[in-house]
Amino acid sequence: MGNYDVVIIGGGPAGVTCAISARNTYPDKSIALIRNQSVTLIPCGIPYVINTLNSVADDVLPDKLLEVTKTDLIVDEVIGRENKTLHLKSGKKISYTKLVLAVGSTPIKPPIEGADKDGIFLVTKDRETLSMVREKSRESERIVIVGGGYIGVELADELLKAGKQVSLVELKPHLLPVSMDPEFGEKAKEILEDAGGRIFLNNKAKRFLGKEKVAALQLEDNTKIDADMVIISAGCRPNTKLAQLMDIDYYPEFGIKVDEYLRTSDRDVFAIGDCAAKHDFFTGEYSPVMLASTAMAEGRLVGSNLFQVKVMRKYTGVLGSFSTKIGNTAFGVSGITENKAKAMNLDYVTGESNTVDRHPGKLPGASQMHLKLIFARYSHTLLGAQMYGGDSIGEMVNMFAVMILNKMTDMEIDNLQIGTHPLLTASPIAYPVINATVDAINKWYRYQPTAT
Amino acid sequence: MGNYDVVIIGGGPAGVTCAISARNTYPDKSIALIRNQSVTLIPCGIPYVINTLNSVADDVLPDKLLEVTKTDLIVDEVIGRENKTLHLKSGKKISYTKLVLAVGSTPIKPPIEGADKDGIFLVTKDRETLSMVREKSRESERIVIVGGGYIGVELADELLKAGKQVSLVELKPHLLPVSMDPEFGEKAKEILEDAGGRIFLNNKAKRFLGKEKVAALQLEDNTKIDADMVIISAGCRPNTKLAQLMDIDYYPEFGIKVDEYLRTSDRDVFAIGDCAAKHDFFTGEYSPVMLASTAMAEGRLVGSNLFQVKVMRKYTGVLGSFSTKIGNTAFGVSGITENKAKAMNLDYVTGESNTVDRHPGKLPGASQMHLKLIFARYSHTLLGAQMYGGDSIGEMVNMFAVMILNKMTDMEIDNLQIGTHPLLTASPIAYPVINATVDAINKWYRYQPTAT
Repeated sequence: MGNYDVVIIGGGPAGVTCAISARNTYPDKSIALIRNQSVTLIPCGIPYVINTLNSVADDVLPDKLLEVTKTDLIVDEVIGRENKTLHLKSGKKISYTKLVLAVGSTPIKPPIEGADKDGIFLVTKDRETLSMVREKSRESERIVIVGGGYIGVELADELLKAGKQVSLVELKPHLLPVSMDPEFGEKAKEILEDAGGRIFLNNKAKRFLGKEKVAALQLEDNTKIDADMVIISAGCRPNTKLAQLMDIDYYPEFGIKVDEYLRTSDRDVFAIGDCAAKHDFFTGEYSPVMLASTAMAEGRLVGSNLFQVKVMRKYTGVLGSFSTKIGNTAFGVSGITENKAKAMNLDYVTGESNTVDRHPGKLPGASQMHLKLIFARYSHTLLGAQMYGGDSIGEMVNMFAVMILNKMTDMEIDNLQIGTHPLLTASPIAYPVINATVDAINKWYRYQPTAT
Repeated sequence: MGNYDVVIIGGGPAGVTCAISARNTYPDKSIALIRNQSVTLIPCGIPYVINTLNSVADDVLPDKLLEVTKTDLIVDEVIGRENKTLHLKSGKKISYTKLVLAVGSTPIKPPIEGADKDGIFLVTKDRETLSMVREKSRESERIVIVGGGYIGVELADELLKAGKQVSLVELKPHLLPVSMDPEFGEKAKEILEDAGGRIFLNNKAKRFLGKEKVAALQLEDNTKIDADMVIISAGCRPNTKLAQLMDIDYYPEFGIKVDEYLRTSDRDVFAIGDCAAKHDFFTGEYSPVMLASTAMAEGRLVGSNLFQVKVMRKYTGVLGSFSTKIGNTAFGVSGITENKAKAMNLDYVTGESNTVDRHPGKLPGASQMHLKLIFARYSHTLLGAQMYGGDSIGEMVNMFAVMILNKMTDMEIDNLQIGTHPLLTASPIAYPVINATVDAINKWYRYQPTAT
């Protein structure tokens, strides 16, 4: 029987980050990480194994991180627990002082008729399935994607770049419906259509046609889309089976119940990443958003706090900062969207800016950029930012995350000393963060002449 | 005689931004901008007129900004003032209610023997001189640059790209000596040398040789560098002549004396941009740093506050956020350097990270990135960030500016939810902002086993 001070179950970004953080904070503790797969994939790299990367192997998260961290890697499956001892599928037993559940999530299989036919795939995070998806996509001509969130849109982009006939079906009236406002979904649609993709919005996948092998997808309005292959990307559900097995509290829909320090109902067991229930940064309500960024922030926190509360948790909830790239255009969002502000009945002002991200605009590498900010009208704090444009949006998103978390107001942003450079950013006079903020200020500010 | 509510003297970024901000805040006021040049150049674009841009005209700041803002443009020169009436060179008179001085700075001509010979140029901001510099550089083979700050290094990069033999002379032991630490200067040197440039450090330009036309530069150690042309970029001095003329207080070295709201000793006259004296963000001392970012933040503030104090000034001083690109490598800095921390006798900890800015690293467009952070050891707040790597550094610099201004601590940064994407940023596990912060934490944190 193995004895460890810390046992982490799950080898994804949350688990690995937690191991690193635990080692940094507790140099003398023994740490083991148990995972049920021989290799771990980099989750956000998954769509890119289709075309941009040369193989699924190029997307493997190196185990060197665990070696450097002096974490024992155990490839096995936890099938039970007795007191503080885990029973593994191989028959081995491992005991722990502190346990961390980082067991992730599983793709949702929507109830579509005929979904068991050959040629229909879910985007799971294991090497074998993804290798099959990659191989199958290479032999297929007509590929249908069900689900127009980030993964669906990224897959469509990759498959179009690989020269495939791509159709994408989304239930909601625009692409990226959960994470961005309609105009950004429209922009994504325009890019995919320009590349030859067919986009079906406001329409539901009703039935897969074909004998053993899928031959077409029939939509709610009876449109029939021929398909050699179908990929379903309809979101994920937290893995709660292990929590159930261990008699730890969980919500089937939102995941394992945790407190501010990610402690479960069992005080020596933590839960992090996709499997842990999350709250929304703005509403405090349970949030279905699953992001590597959140998972890893949780992993770092728990790794530091395992044996004492060392890092105080300013409970923030899921802010939702992410970025992607479709065709040659980057998209990014941090915080609240206008759609969500409306749903919350929030009193808000938007500010917008359209500019070029080099100056003068005649310099090479310049991209058109669109930015939309959302401020609380009364308190003037920044609540959200959405944008599309050049590659530097990947880091602008994080600047906005920092602004939102620090509750910066429109005036504070207007006062910022922003660094700009001709070859790297927009002009200081057209700097989008400032200009969109000024646009918002101009909307709430009504000039009142005074007697001065 | 013209009568205006607001008169701005100077057409650079500070003046134009001030006009825009004044118009936004005071829709009914009449505004005029007086400048002594027919066109205004985009200051940070100036080095790029040498090679990357097709002409000096491509670097002109469009007057459309003034038209849209309903600002009357007067091309003339202010030569005197009587009460609140300005006397112009043309004989015209213009009266104002509020006056803004945005008259900029002038390149310093260091006292080098023979500096009046033909073929020796200063980097001034007017179209005529720059057109001459551009033309002369095209006919020259061997070009010597005196001064290894940003402008000198950018000019060297441009001239090397144009296929010239470039020598650069810097007084201090490393390039970018004021703004960055030695290892970053070394990296810049390496890039310029790889491109064929010759760099002379720790050496002083002593004497220009040649008859009427410059033929060589002799250094303090008697090295002789042959030259068909010399460009001197040795910093700038604030323009204070107009303040002197108007009997407004100023420091010859640091510029026009202003209070927290950029008001001069005359309550109806403001000064902004390079001509206004500035304080350092950290030390509070007068600062010689002149940046468009600071100038424009001042322009926006004064534009809003002309007739009442509307925007409260959280007095910050010059933070110093800037970025540049040398060869294919971007460089950026925000806040304090380690050199400066030492000079201030500050108790600090550094944190470093080396990573690739895409993930997996096999994705196209990946660059090696180096980041160095400086934290106050005792209060744990972030004080400075320096980096080199890919283009997104242009925006990372601004993220760091936001963190420093918000006095974020290492723990708060470690807790951030950072958005990452394979095609746009480093991996979340190798995200440099987090990893350099953790590196700093590991340095001050000494593990003390406890009885828990």
